[in-house]
Amino acid sequence: MAPEPLTAEAFAPFGEVIEASERAEQIAINYGMTTRFNDLAAVDVGDDKGRAILSIFRGRPLSPPVLRVFERHPLGSQAFVPLSGRPFLVAVAPAGAFDPAAIRLFRAAPHQGVNYAKGVWHHFLLPLGAESDFLVIDRAGPGDNLDEIELGPEAAILAEA
Amino acid sequence: MAPEPLTAEAFAPFGEVIEASERAEQIAINYGMTTRFNDLAAVDVGDDKGRAILSIFRGRPLSPPVLRVFERHPLGSQAFVPLSGRPFLVAVAPAGAFDPAAIRLFRAAPHQGVNYAKGVWHHFLLPLGAESDFLVIDRAGPGDNLDEIELGPEAAILAEA
Repeated sequence: MAPEPLTAEAFAPFGEVIEASERAEQIAINYGMTTRFNDLAAVDVGDDKGRAILSIFRGRPLSPPVLRVFERHPLGSQAFVPLSGRPFLVAVAPAGAFDPAAIRLFRAAPHQGVNYAKGVWHHFLLPLGAESDFLVIDRAGPGDNLDEIELGPEAAILAEA
Repeated sequence: MAPEPLTAEAFAPFGEVIEASERAEQIAINYGMTTRFNDLAAVDVGDDKGRAILSIFRGRPLSPPVLRVFERHPLGSQAFVPLSGRPFLVAVAPAGAFDPAAIRLFRAAPHQGVNYAKGVWHHFLLPLGAESDFLVIDRAGPGDNLDEIELGPEAAILAEA
């Protein structure tokens, strides 16, 4: 499967693209020294028992890039923002019953992050090129916030980078 | 004023340092392909009327680097994580009545972010070297979440980079 370019429109059914886009609300602050590209994504932690936390994920490229395991977080959103200046792959499927025929594959540029909406199926972290760090913003709190599904060998998808 | 190196210990009175530190809780996930440096900082949005949002700040270096304006956010934390691979300065003073004699200056490395605790005084964004992008995680919601104080010319601080 060849990846699509990651755009806000194409990714909208799955969440937000986090980038300093010309279409974002831009606010001049700090006496004109800073532009705030405002509210690019909202952190969803569900009810009042969840809290948002910041973590760093250090991931290695999958080789060969065979997509086999998808997961979802039923209790909150999860954002990934690249810190190592490298692109990465984003494989998603709509929330609800997992439908392998509905899988979409995107290639995120080094300046683009993604925020998976609550319940959206996504493959685990897919860095490209070399081990890479990502800032992750997600939910901590009580409850089981991880569902996982594994495709059979016949359904696994070979991703192009 | 010469900056101190940014360390978790030195910065503890003001908030958290966001970095993939050896001392963080490290969890192997994604079938061993990823290490999660877990819960490096908590996003504090106060009561239930606030929500956490992700924004990008694009800031220019202050030249000359004269520190004159400090601000605080009484209703929530604010985190800055560098996306452009450059160091930046972090000037802070303890929460409570602003005390210019208590100002501390840190130099953050390109792989280090900071999370200012609610109410901690901090100078506005101080990139070094060139215009730089930062991911910012802070609070949106009702209420006035910004206090600002300006030092007189005689109290302004010249920062070394």
